[in-house]
Amino acid sequence: MKGFYNLGELATADVEKLVARALHLRAGAAPRRFEGKALGILFFNPSLRTQASFQRAAGKLGVDLVQLQAGGNGVWGIECEDGVTMDAGNAEHVREAAPVLGRFVDVLAIRAFAGIQSLDRDLRDALMNGFRKHAGIPVVNMESALWHPCQALADWTTMDLYEIPRRAKFVLTWAWHPKPLPHAVPNSTVCMASQRGMDVVVLRPKGYDLHESILAEASALAKANGGTLTVTDDRESALKDASIVYAKSWASLGCWGNTEAETAQRAGLREWCVSPEWMKRTDRARFMHCLPVRRNVVVRDEVLDGPWSIVIDQAENRLHAQTALLESQFASLERKSQIRAKSPVPLELPQ
Amino acid sequence: MKGFYNLGELATADVEKLVARALHLRAGAAPRRFEGKALGILFFNPSLRTQASFQRAAGKLGVDLVQLQAGGNGVWGIECEDGVTMDAGNAEHVREAAPVLGRFVDVLAIRAFAGIQSLDRDLRDALMNGFRKHAGIPVVNMESALWHPCQALADWTTMDLYEIPRRAKFVLTWAWHPKPLPHAVPNSTVCMASQRGMDVVVLRPKGYDLHESILAEASALAKANGGTLTVTDDRESALKDASIVYAKSWASLGCWGNTEAETAQRAGLREWCVSPEWMKRTDRARFMHCLPVRRNVVVRDEVLDGPWSIVIDQAENRLHAQTALLESQFASLERKSQIRAKSPVPLELPQ
Amino acid sequence: MKGFYNLGELATADVEKLVARALHLRAGAAPRRFEGKALGILFFNPSLRTQASFQRAAGKLGVDLVQLQAGGNGVWGIECEDGVTMDAGNAEHVREAAPVLGRFVDVLAIRAFAGIQSLDRDLRDALMNGFRKHAGIPVVNMESALWHPCQALADWTTMDLYEIPRRAKFVLTWAWHPKPLPHAVPNSTVCMASQRGMDVVVLRPKGYDLHESILAEASALAKANGGTLTVTDDRESALKDASIVYAKSWASLGCWGNTEAETAQRAGLREWCVSPEWMKRTDRARFMHCLPVRRNVVVRDEVLDGPWSIVIDQAENRLHAQTALLESQFASLERKSQIRAKSPVPLELPQ
Repeated sequence: MKGFYNLGELATADVEKLVARALHLRAGAAPRRFEGKALGILFFNPSLRTQASFQRAAGKLGVDLVQLQAGGNGVWGIECEDGVTMDAGNAEHVREAAPVLGRFVDVLAIRAFAGIQSLDRDLRDALMNGFRKHAGIPVVNMESALWHPCQALADWTTMDLYEIPRRAKFVLTWAWHPKPLPHAVPNSTVCMASQRGMDVVVLRPKGYDLHESILAEASALAKANGGTLTVTDDRESALKDASIVYAKSWASLGCWGNTEAETAQRAGLREWCVSPEWMKRTDRARFMHCLPVRRNVVVRDEVLDGPWSIVIDQAENRLHAQTALLESQFASLERKSQIRAKSPVPLELPQ
Repeated sequence: MKGFYNLGELATADVEKLVARALHLRAGAAPRRFEGKALGILFFNPSLRTQASFQRAAGKLGVDLVQLQAGGNGVWGIECEDGVTMDAGNAEHVREAAPVLGRFVDVLAIRAFAGIQSLDRDLRDALMNGFRKHAGIPVVNMESALWHPCQALADWTTMDLYEIPRRAKFVLTWAWHPKPLPHAVPNSTVCMASQRGMDVVVLRPKGYDLHESILAEASALAKANGGTLTVTDDRESALKDASIVYAKSWASLGCWGNTEAETAQRAGLREWCVSPEWMKRTDRARFMHCLPVRRNVVVRDEVLDGPWSIVIDQAENRLHAQTALLESQFASLERKSQIRAKSPVPLELPQ
Repeated sequence: MKGFYNLGELATADVEKLVARALHLRAGAAPRRFEGKALGILFFNPSLRTQASFQRAAGKLGVDLVQLQAGGNGVWGIECEDGVTMDAGNAEHVREAAPVLGRFVDVLAIRAFAGIQSLDRDLRDALMNGFRKHAGIPVVNMESALWHPCQALADWTTMDLYEIPRRAKFVLTWAWHPKPLPHAVPNSTVCMASQRGMDVVVLRPKGYDLHESILAEASALAKANGGTLTVTDDRESALKDASIVYAKSWASLGCWGNTEAETAQRAGLREWCVSPEWMKRTDRARFMHCLPVRRNVVVRDEVLDGPWSIVIDQAENRLHAQTALLESQFASLERKSQIRAKSPVPLELPQ
């Protein structure tokens, strides 16, 4: 396996193997050790679970850890557009930052959220793809503009832990939030549940569709894996018979980069907050959320503190899923001959 | 031992054991190793000694380290009040943050200073107690709104190192400072010296009493351990026969959250700065301070650079005291059966 | 070896040994392990390569790592001037910060850039020298106001890797940049190349001389090691026969602390940007830069992405050179008896 950008890039059987390994690790199996190898983790955005679980996974795997953060006295601002005259804020280009880190560590994990300013740039997943293109080593996505595959892997693990049937009904619901948020989690969630072969419903108010390319990918995954995909704003039909209610807020593609328009559009939508009444319309569904979650904004206290919530197990599974993933990445490096250049490149001048 | 919130929660004999172990470690004893265990350290406020010594202690004990900081691209802002509608700044609630970290590590250390805005909130020690209540694992206090017990443990260790008699006279003196500072250090200092059975004097100008609940706890500790507690603004009598002069600035409870009132109240108090003249009135006293200390504001250069100061040994003892403390915490985990849930919780719906 | 402040403080034969060791490490030699020892790294300024390579080197050497950063919820602001009344921004003095860290770790590495406000202060290298004077342990310079010796060591290693002859022509060229930058890299570069016995040319526009004390040190090193030193603004003669073009921007000593004057002075100098035309005037020269580098500002994309550039190997060699250096530092600690005080200092009062 060469890096990890998006869960859907893996064959379903390979996802199943990682999930099974994650559950073994959770049950107490010892991870393999890769002494002398190194993992780099670089954060361009805040994190609690991801930072903590990647640090801990490095310890469990016995690898050296290089931990970096953008901002303050951390790493320099990184430019990722090609051909730019860099006389503005960014001091370094990903064309240097990525291969340099690729010389210092063996696997590089990156968090780089959508900026929600330029839709084009976010759809290109520019910073993450810059690192993937130039690092020269496997790059693991710790949440990019488009995908959060480690979350998706942990979520699948959590549903297996709770013995949620493969064909059960999975509802991803939009929720109100004071800020427009990126699409990485809902994108990865809808594709993950589709790849798991579930009956997936995206419940959202008008104006909050996910990008058509994501819905197309989810549909294809559903079809290939025996599931279905539906998009609706009818809460009652969506919740009926649901086994999972997965809440998340996300920005409107139609208002991308326009906070005032976004605020106006969602002004009447504050009742999109998951309450016990929602849960009671389901078939004994469990409540999931990637965290962090704003209480009494996205979901009521009564749900998070009630019997439905499995968010803490879901978060714990980040550790086990990522340990399984990194174990697989480092093991795959061992099977290859080392190809990194050890000798200088001869000078061949242009004619 | 289940976590470490306040030195006074330990029996005096248990404090003595930790101090003795700290002195053994200082003298070169090898700490026990706890490979496969993990320590998390999370800072909501700046730190030099605490960060450095906890990191080093983790290395000495052989445990995996998870290090987190609030702000910038670190962890999300954490809400700790129950029942809040979280539509303002904080993105995550301690009811999620704490148990999630409790799944990733075995012992969690937290620094969360008083905000000095709401006295009620600071007296409740709201953020620290949120972590203690919800983490599900032992929580170590790296300085909260109310207490700095690791400092107190190091201070006791330092007095034993310098063979300061148990019944010697210990003077905690207020000092001028440009900003109103939290009470955690003076609270812990006065209680620690009282528990050590010393003749404790709190020397402060009018308006700078510690909270009555703290003075009551210190009095009770003094009584139980054979010491005395006095509060005065008479510098001459306070310093006479003193063996320790411990300086610290703190905010006025009467001006809590009102910086202008505080500034006005302390306007005439700049001469509350420990000078050689102060030290010469003592009985060959040593000078202590928790650091960082503002030179020529809280204490004169001549004292810090003179024969009285033991602040560097005092700071070094943070490492040894905390290594002893963490060794005890991890050892106590080993003696218990692992009780963390490994299997999902069955769904029991409300009637 | 006691710390590492400036490459020129080492005998040339000692530099050669470190470079040879760095190349062995690059080729796969195993570094020595120093379990139970500890390295502290403290950053007052941003960093990518330095942070990552020092963290990784600590892993390779098996030492405990203590990593600290100024700002945010990192370490307190550090004062380094003696005798100051500390009632302004800085909460801690280097007279405490340095010896305290010296009790927690065995080798301490510091990054403290020039502030480019006071030339006197920058020429004294005040913060770095404060740590060196007060830490009580070896201090490694990770870039100070005056020197970046780890970069210089990596650069020498890189030229040996590329088999650049000792007497080859080395051109350090100034480049335009939107901001006035410190002199540490050009200072270390010109002295390193001079100590390597090269024919060194500093190519810069009028107004951009390095400090006379640096040029004097470089001249002396050139003379002692069989090389030459020239300063010119004639690009054509400078580039002719060059084997290395090393680009770097730096501030004008005449405008130090005056950003408007600096901006005005360099207004017409934007064409000081290394292009393929520059490289074609050389004798098949390689292009070097310490990174981060602003593309199409300091150097054109065509050079960085073309056959001339060896900047990624140069950056990789930071890791190997610093691992060799730290290995030497820790090994030298082992040969000494431990002299750190384990017992309290007796109180000797002034008469």
